[in-house]
Amino acid sequence: MDLKEINALLPFLLRRENVARFEDGAVIMCDRRKYPFEKTFVRCEDVECAARAIEDMVTQGGGPQYVALYAMAMLAGQVSENSAEDQQEAFEAARQRLVSTRPTNTSMARHLENALAVMQAALEKGQNVQSILLDWIEDLRDASYEKHLKCGQYGNSLINDGDGVLTMCFAETSLLMTLALAKQAGKDIHVFTPETRPYLQGARLTAPSIHEIGVPVRIITDNMPTHVLSEGRIQIYMTAADLVTLDGHVVNKIGTFQNVLAAHYHGVPYFVFTQAADKYKPDRTSVEIEERDPQEIRMCRGVPTTIQEIDAYYPAFDITPPHFVAGVISQHGILSPYDLAHYFG
Amino acid sequence: MDLKEINALLPFLLRRENVARFEDGAVIMCDRRKYPFEKTFVRCEDVECAARAIEDMVTQGGGPQYVALYAMAMLAGQVSENSAEDQQEAFEAARQRLVSTRPTNTSMARHLENALAVMQAALEKGQNVQSILLDWIEDLRDASYEKHLKCGQYGNSLINDGDGVLTMCFAETSLLMTLALAKQAGKDIHVFTPETRPYLQGARLTAPSIHEIGVPVRIITDNMPTHVLSEGRIQIYMTAADLVTLDGHVVNKIGTFQNVLAAHYHGVPYFVFTQAADKYKPDRTSVEIEERDPQEIRMCRGVPTTIQEIDAYYPAFDITPPHFVAGVISQHGILSPYDLAHYFG
Repeated sequence: MDLKEINALLPFLLRRENVARFEDGAVIMCDRRKYPFEKTFVRCEDVECAARAIEDMVTQGGGPQYVALYAMAMLAGQVSENSAEDQQEAFEAARQRLVSTRPTNTSMARHLENALAVMQAALEKGQNVQSILLDWIEDLRDASYEKHLKCGQYGNSLINDGDGVLTMCFAETSLLMTLALAKQAGKDIHVFTPETRPYLQGARLTAPSIHEIGVPVRIITDNMPTHVLSEGRIQIYMTAADLVTLDGHVVNKIGTFQNVLAAHYHGVPYFVFTQAADKYKPDRTSVEIEERDPQEIRMCRGVPTTIQEIDAYYPAFDITPPHFVAGVISQHGILSPYDLAHYFG
Repeated sequence: MDLKEINALLPFLLRRENVARFEDGAVIMCDRRKYPFEKTFVRCEDVECAARAIEDMVTQGGGPQYVALYAMAMLAGQVSENSAEDQQEAFEAARQRLVSTRPTNTSMARHLENALAVMQAALEKGQNVQSILLDWIEDLRDASYEKHLKCGQYGNSLINDGDGVLTMCFAETSLLMTLALAKQAGKDIHVFTPETRPYLQGARLTAPSIHEIGVPVRIITDNMPTHVLSEGRIQIYMTAADLVTLDGHVVNKIGTFQNVLAAHYHGVPYFVFTQAADKYKPDRTSVEIEERDPQEIRMCRGVPTTIQEIDAYYPAFDITPPHFVAGVISQHGILSPYDLAHYFG
């Protein structure tokens, strides 16, 4: 399967050009806050706009890393007439601003560090930094989709005809590849997706994307996975991860861990997709859990869920320990969570 | 503490006259769908109106049983000039209509059976059925508040200074009495209440009621209890029950069980308040789990959470097995879930 065929298998939200693209000197991204009610795009013409878009969750999950990289390419074009020293300062300031947007998912931070090295090298050689960086980003995205395809193939190998699949939040391309390949193989499967409050990624992003590729999907609210598991409707639980530590802890959208506990109690295995464990995150003590504005808990799609006087608490991620992880699905195969240093260390 | 003092300790929603009352030939109930944004009341002048109010969740939890009983009293007044046979037929038809509204919580059904016996006896003796029934309902409510006070005292005995309390949905008077008594005793406590989708009873009913009695409370979304438990912020988990079977299974708002699994994993005990186990429900196979309209899952306070094409699933309750129940708090004390037949059989 080539990259065009992979892209064609994917739903609207996950097609490469809709996740993020660089066009006419600006960064363009699908507005995931408005999807699926509207298919609109946000256009950013400076780094601050891109950083705010990430903070405000215009894009999330796998989107921010590419928005951030294109923002660096955009900046490279904007400062190309400045002195090398000024350019380096601008790049470093932009990197810091972008990294500060979301502290938990570190793949954006890692990609930005690598991008900065690429930009630095181009600058030293007197090359066109923007053009070098854009080529590098495209290669990175090609490689990423190849990894997703492998994850999808490994994921599909774990799914049996008749299975019910539980997921959480928006597990993006690896899960959608898995489901698309299972469907291609003629397996009769169905998916339950918790709505994923407060942003409803499950109801708004995951369910419409799965529906779009023709796999039966039902949404439930976040208090329902355990009961649905107890009814025997689910045989496998699969999510993405915002971060996998080198010792196999899975950091993902809050709620992931409580579904894991419920799956474990009901004898259902939990698998996580990742492009890489983070070699700079050795264990759970190295993870920073982002705490977001409590106001977001008191609202649902702009409507208040309670009165303003009521206090709220919004940790955005939780951590699943490795002894609950049946397998880490990566380009290298379905790995033991205890063997990640071997591949990513 | 007398009944007036108990009522004065309780927040607006749980004051006797606001739960339900019979006034000028009509049944009046606080509209729990609009609370806390509006404090409005729904007035029903016939049994069908009361039945629909229960189905549509104008009132829920501990409310429907009293609305149903007052609806029977209202009917008794409306048909008092008819033949005894016609009256009996009307009472039985009304009982069936009211019981059909919500199949899982059977306390309304049990109270209606008892009410019918009271009405039958009054009819046979040529007494004023409505007046006899209204007196009987008031006695029942007096006894119920006495039980809630005892539950509150037992509940308070389980709470230590500094404790974090987790609850789910709207555990009503027994929980609020517990918290009010803990506060009176000078204990520094705080409560986490999951919002309880799709109807948001936790965010709309529980949190404002706890806030009103001056106990610190924070709402979280339904995907967060496990993470909050993992942070060590919770020392005790307490809910009400829509139904407790005679062998100690707890049937309550969906999500209760997954919080129990998480509490158990983190070494936090789970207690349930009940006025009585149901002697006609011996075990989990005798429980009917209500399945509600999937459309309610696709909405949050009238706003769509996804597009209409997406399928949804809405089981309204779940079942916690007795081996996860640390104690059943009733007027008889903090009971073992395995010893309920002794008290309620």
